[in-house]
Amino acid sequence: MSASRDASFSIGVDLGGTNLRVAAFDSEWKRLSYMALPTRVAAGPEAVAADMAGAVRSLLGEHAPKREFRGVGVGSPGPLELPAGKFHQPPNLPGFDGFELRAALESALQRPVVVECDGRAAALAEWKLGAGRLVPGDSMCMLTLGTGVGGGIVLDGKLWRGMTGMAGENGHIALVPDGLPCGCGGRGCLEQYASATAIQRAAKKLAASGGAPAIARLQAEEGEIAAKSLAALARSGDLQARDLFAELGGFLGMGLTALINTLNLPLYVIGGGLVSAWDLFAPSMFESLRRLCYVYRLSQPADPARPAPRATNLVPAVLGSEAGLLGAAMLPCQND
Amino acid sequence: MSASRDASFSIGVDLGGTNLRVAAFDSEWKRLSYMALPTRVAAGPEAVAADMAGAVRSLLGEHAPKREFRGVGVGSPGPLELPAGKFHQPPNLPGFDGFELRAALESALQRPVVVECDGRAAALAEWKLGAGRLVPGDSMCMLTLGTGVGGGIVLDGKLWRGMTGMAGENGHIALVPDGLPCGCGGRGCLEQYASATAIQRAAKKLAASGGAPAIARLQAEEGEIAAKSLAALARSGDLQARDLFAELGGFLGMGLTALINTLNLPLYVIGGGLVSAWDLFAPSMFESLRRLCYVYRLSQPADPARPAPRATNLVPAVLGSEAGLLGAAMLPCQND
Repeated sequence: MSASRDASFSIGVDLGGTNLRVAAFDSEWKRLSYMALPTRVAAGPEAVAADMAGAVRSLLGEHAPKREFRGVGVGSPGPLELPAGKFHQPPNLPGFDGFELRAALESALQRPVVVECDGRAAALAEWKLGAGRLVPGDSMCMLTLGTGVGGGIVLDGKLWRGMTGMAGENGHIALVPDGLPCGCGGRGCLEQYASATAIQRAAKKLAASGGAPAIARLQAEEGEIAAKSLAALARSGDLQARDLFAELGGFLGMGLTALINTLNLPLYVIGGGLVSAWDLFAPSMFESLRRLCYVYRLSQPADPARPAPRATNLVPAVLGSEAGLLGAAMLPCQND
Repeated sequence: MSASRDASFSIGVDLGGTNLRVAAFDSEWKRLSYMALPTRVAAGPEAVAADMAGAVRSLLGEHAPKREFRGVGVGSPGPLELPAGKFHQPPNLPGFDGFELRAALESALQRPVVVECDGRAAALAEWKLGAGRLVPGDSMCMLTLGTGVGGGIVLDGKLWRGMTGMAGENGHIALVPDGLPCGCGGRGCLEQYASATAIQRAAKKLAASGGAPAIARLQAEEGEIAAKSLAALARSGDLQARDLFAELGGFLGMGLTALINTLNLPLYVIGGGLVSAWDLFAPSMFESLRRLCYVYRLSQPADPARPAPRATNLVPAVLGSEAGLLGAAMLPCQND
């Protein structure tokens, strides 16, 4: 590594449906500075792109005088056509259909910008600095359980983007014939059974049925039931709440079966906010895999909690909410 | 291409649960000679390996005096651990569990042998000489609908084998929660809904129900209903027979949804014996994809029958039963 590289930085932007987060990282991926602002979705894509460019310019002004600038990367909700970063009816960014994010930012910044799907940016960070460091091998698949289910696939050390940059839409594996309608326009997608939204909906239904008094009390207190409160209730021993997480784990195992039997990778990683409930859904997820997935059965690690070579390892993500931002900042440095 | 390469040959072996086929091909992939013998499964793996080696030796004796020998490749039913070609409880080759095919053949032939899963060998041939030639792009995924459902994935021009050579087990995508039990030990696998075996079982059930007189007559005449006879009945206008193929197409579209949304490739190919019923299952397969698969919807070719660039193309295989044998012979030449 050259002396100037040691004193270099890159900027990552994590565009969310609610918040816009921007950070500068040094060459060792230590955070140098951080900004968060609301995503003004209603103001339209041009306004949001202007906010992003403004934040990037401010970080550039702070660090460029002292360090070599390596580039700026953006992780954005999909579906996106790449490398243009052109939106295709994004469910969480209404009004953004057809907008080309890269061109807008490059024109505002007069610099090259790399745009990537947010799930893939997070997968890149987990691959390089998180769960990927724990397991031998050079491929990985990640599922991100949040409001929806996103993901990313790393094959032979590189992000797999697919023909038009839409690869890794792991949340839209069809699991249930004529199942629940999904935001993507399909039915029965994994996202409808293994996201925070999915477990909240299931909890609501259970509360309305009258058969789950503790969940009904939670709803009366909170209005919308947060997945975290539901997890706390499950950990306190409430059987109905425990069942909801067990059911989610079962569906997750079913979705992973498609990925493991078709890709046969050494490592699968579960990330996103819901991963904090790993203790609650993991047992039924592993049970579902042992029951359904023969490539998993044939290459099962002796102890699922201990990564092993030549085994199908399935572990929780380790970088938390930092992954998306960090992965975005890594995007312009992939070929360095 | 050198003069000696022009006058070269390679040998392909297609190990089936019923027949063992062996052929020599020249450098242009024209068939030079062909042998078929029964697979003596009951005699055990050593006897079958000896039969294979005997047939290969006979073709070597015929062609090696006149041509440069490029190598021998074997396509075998899975699950196989690669590159050893070690069987893991193969459902169609009882008694072969743990047998290492490559070592047995190399010891008998005193030459290097390449072993590959049969679905992947067929995918390689379709990629190089079949459907793969019709579509721009360098990746493809194939599903082979026969007794079971096999497959193979080509990424960036190369077979994707996965960590232990079990990638491409596309028949074991889990489609139906608590669905039909599968030979792999799982439940609800695509193979149980979109194979020749699956449609035969569904036909039998329908015949027994009393509500499908024409199918019941077919069963009385044939004993076991062949998928071909069922297709002929459907083409003659029998509604119940037509429904069986439409249902198969629907499940196939559901399985393809997982592959298309996660891999985003330019080309998906349906092969295997059942592809002769393409006219009967394709309409509901495409309908199911349009309904379920948003990456397909966003990159749908204007006319599904005409391959287009930057579209998700889904076409029938073109090489027929030759694909497995040809792909096996291509295996030793992949790095040439």
